[in-house]
Amino acid sequence: MISLADLQRRIAQGALSPEAAIGQSLEAVGADRATIGAFVRYDEKARAQGAGPLRGIAVGIKDIIDTADVPTEMGAAIYRGHQPRADAPVVMALKQAGATIIGKTTTTAFAANDPTATLNPHNHAHTPGGSSSGSAAAVAAAMIPLALGTQTGGSVIRPASFCGVAAIKPSYRLLPTVGVKCFSWTLDTVGLFASGVRDVALGLSAMTNRPELVVPPEVATPRIGVVTQAFAGAPEASGAAALQTASRAAERAGASVRELAMPDIVAEAWRIHPIVQDFEAHQSFAWEYRQNYDAMPPLLRGRLDESKGITARDYDAAMNVALSARQALSAVFDEVDVLLTLSAPGAAPKGLSYTGDPRYNRLWTLMGVPCVNVPALIAEGGLPVGVTVIAPFGADARALAAASFVEGALRN
Amino acid sequence: MISLADLQRRIAQGALSPEAAIGQSLEAVGADRATIGAFVRYDEKARAQGAGPLRGIAVGIKDIIDTADVPTEMGAAIYRGHQPRADAPVVMALKQAGATIIGKTTTTAFAANDPTATLNPHNHAHTPGGSSSGSAAAVAAAMIPLALGTQTGGSVIRPASFCGVAAIKPSYRLLPTVGVKCFSWTLDTVGLFASGVRDVALGLSAMTNRPELVVPPEVATPRIGVVTQAFAGAPEASGAAALQTASRAAERAGASVRELAMPDIVAEAWRIHPIVQDFEAHQSFAWEYRQNYDAMPPLLRGRLDESKGITARDYDAAMNVALSARQALSAVFDEVDVLLTLSAPGAAPKGLSYTGDPRYNRLWTLMGVPCVNVPALIAEGGLPVGVTVIAPFGADARALAAASFVEGALRN
Repeated sequence: MISLADLQRRIAQGALSPEAAIGQSLEAVGADRATIGAFVRYDEKARAQGAGPLRGIAVGIKDIIDTADVPTEMGAAIYRGHQPRADAPVVMALKQAGATIIGKTTTTAFAANDPTATLNPHNHAHTPGGSSSGSAAAVAAAMIPLALGTQTGGSVIRPASFCGVAAIKPSYRLLPTVGVKCFSWTLDTVGLFASGVRDVALGLSAMTNRPELVVPPEVATPRIGVVTQAFAGAPEASGAAALQTASRAAERAGASVRELAMPDIVAEAWRIHPIVQDFEAHQSFAWEYRQNYDAMPPLLRGRLDESKGITARDYDAAMNVALSARQALSAVFDEVDVLLTLSAPGAAPKGLSYTGDPRYNRLWTLMGVPCVNVPALIAEGGLPVGVTVIAPFGADARALAAASFVEGALRN
Repeated sequence: MISLADLQRRIAQGALSPEAAIGQSLEAVGADRATIGAFVRYDEKARAQGAGPLRGIAVGIKDIIDTADVPTEMGAAIYRGHQPRADAPVVMALKQAGATIIGKTTTTAFAANDPTATLNPHNHAHTPGGSSSGSAAAVAAAMIPLALGTQTGGSVIRPASFCGVAAIKPSYRLLPTVGVKCFSWTLDTVGLFASGVRDVALGLSAMTNRPELVVPPEVATPRIGVVTQAFAGAPEASGAAALQTASRAAERAGASVRELAMPDIVAEAWRIHPIVQDFEAHQSFAWEYRQNYDAMPPLLRGRLDESKGITARDYDAAMNVALSARQALSAVFDEVDVLLTLSAPGAAPKGLSYTGDPRYNRLWTLMGVPCVNVPALIAEGGLPVGVTVIAPFGADARALAAASFVEGALRN
């Protein structure tokens, strides 16, 4: 993979020109078209900017995020050729930091269930995960050092786990979702993919003008609470092994590690996540679903068919559970600095018809807390499996630093 | 004005056809073009739907809200001719309830400061207020029974007060802002204008499928806390008179009415509202401001120029104040059912260059609580002045019922 930190260093030292850095990504993306299929389209004429911390950094943008210069097609026939007027704020944030938008990455239709044709770079017979399929795959295949995705259930952390890359789903609304096709306004979160945790942190820091997000050279040894999320069912062997491997590595590196049970209300929040998501989705996709029913992606359409019966009362009750659970979760962090949990039930499923299960991700999206995927092991078939480091709402710097600690511990 | 409740009744009784109801609005809107100027464009071929609680109800949509069939120009040259792909969820909610979208109403540029040419129907030498200028004016001028607007500071309640119509800014995210041009994602709220409080309630209830929002025939006598918002400065004589008139009327009608001081943290939240708004606006308008600086509406551009220095740290501190203030405000409602406060400093200012001051509205937008404007008196020049009834977050039904009580008290 291409490390963003490494590129920055070489560019700062004059060992690599920003233009050459963009050129190597352009070449890789161009060569990929017939293999992984991570991009919907890319800009053959993309050029480096002259200044900014992300100069020379080629970024792929998930194709549900508006771009003013190229279409944004949402992975869906209804939006074929759709050209937004403006760049989304997150795209502008990248440009203002000096990055080069190199192209649009594949997304499952409307960032929901209907898969793309993108392959997992580690094993072409497997899904890269979704919904941010192209962004995770493009970083994993060393085409680009940075990519944007979005998560409503597990659409950043899960593909990152399946593709063996670092990723962050930041605190809710740390990055604006303005100009991002909405699925659920309570849940949708823009996230970043990069080679390692420090790379992700550099990207997020530059986008937000928040220097405190950069992982310092020496990170504190965290107190870690391991959460198995039994309420979400049992993981596969590779998922369980990833969590155990990461826990043991962190413990060997000096961290205090203990298993933590979640308060009942938090488990209840896991249960009601789909109520929030699907009630809002019926409104977000009202035009598509009500006026373009036949052209709707079939898996998303089926999901909306099934969730028609959710009432405003169900939704209000679910939102109240979410509020109480956020307060209860906040108290859990009195005892530990971060939580460590599964990023996915196991390695990427075989085939491309199913992008995998977000059941270990969705609770944390609803809680709005920062989540960082750290690759933990390589399972059968060469397929990576990651773990998730979670900090309290607003403590994105802590999540990144602790994830970097776990990443380092796993290397030793 | 055209009462939505009255139209519904006549249509249900067969005394008026939905088609005739739409026809009379079409005629009024067509005749208006040279006078008030409330519409950017309207659909001469608009027809009634055959079913739904809002059949026969012609609705005007503020021109920052996406419509799939006609352009959405944001009151700004940069978006001239801009044609969104989809209807915003709030537009779809109206259509699903049987309403007819009759046209797009004028908005200050990007729902900020740069005014429209729309006139106040009560006195053509005065502003109708902003930013939802056309929606308030079109309802006040009896062109349509219902209109949508949006509020980030005071853009629903203030024009409603200036134009003498009822309006609700519902609880934050009761109506989705998906497909609505974003100013500040923490603040932007979609609201409704109609002739009276019961009309507004019928519209909101139909849009949200929440029957409990309809104001019952008999409403409970509320305990009212009067809030003068001294932290926002003193009102003009007409504003102070409106608040006093409404308080006394409510008291005469049997309500318990007493003045309430706000906790210090709530006054502090009033102070930091612009920090939240402008920090987010710099991101929301990044494409417009950074890439189309010269074409930006000058007043909004100047405001962004002035607020460039707000840091992420300032914003985080402001968001923490907002959170604490919401909790403190929630405790205030242990003692009273609703609050009663000013909708504006006084009657609509003279001239069209300035749409008025949102200083009595902005706190409540940041608190996310439902606010209902009730016309309270007619000041010099025939200009209306309203008051605002406020309930706790999520208690929109209570806000509407209490506002209806105050409205009834003012009639006697």
